[in-house]
Amino acid sequence: MRLSESEIRERLKDLKGWTYAGGRLEKRYPFRGFTDALAFVNRVAEIAEALNHHPDVLLQYGAVTLMCLTHSENGVTAKDFDLAGRCDAAAG
Amino acid sequence: MRLSESEIRERLKDLKGWTYAGGRLEKRYPFRGFTDALAFVNRVAEIAEALNHHPDVLLQYGAVTLMCLTHSENGVTAKDFDLAGRCDAAAG
Repeated sequence: MRLSESEIRERLKDLKGWTYAGGRLEKRYPFRGFTDALAFVNRVAEIAEALNHHPDVLLQYGAVTLMCLTHSENGVTAKDFDLAGRCDAAAG
Repeated sequence: MRLSESEIRERLKDLKGWTYAGGRLEKRYPFRGFTDALAFVNRVAEIAEALNHHPDVLLQYGAVTLMCLTHSENGVTAKDFDLAGRCDAAAG
């Protein structure tokens, strides 16, 4: 179920570095280089497959940006917060 | 060395599906699902490491978009066309 903006703002308080803009949750994770960034992308992919919920992933030389929304609900749901929290844990 | 726009337009004729916009080369590769898309990202990463030249990579559920430019030259160079061609070959 799609969350209201106030519910999203409330839940964001439990996450570090995530923002809500453009109808999605987004966070940029900096990395020292490409290898570390790529390794994180692969960890995120494992999480996404396990949850059957997939973020958009932008891989750059020294950073990975994750964008989470639930297409079927056209908005942010509890699944996106679950995904975000698990990706944070995997970022180490 | 940064290529002129006319050089870029000329070289683009040898590539399929690549566009030049916003100062970079860009192509979207569709895939059937996440696993295929992720496998392509990892092949692109190997190519990028071998060339020591890294595109920005957007991984989505059913597509991968590559964006190539040479930051040190603030534009598109022959290295970007080399990278683009090799990624096309790896897309199968």
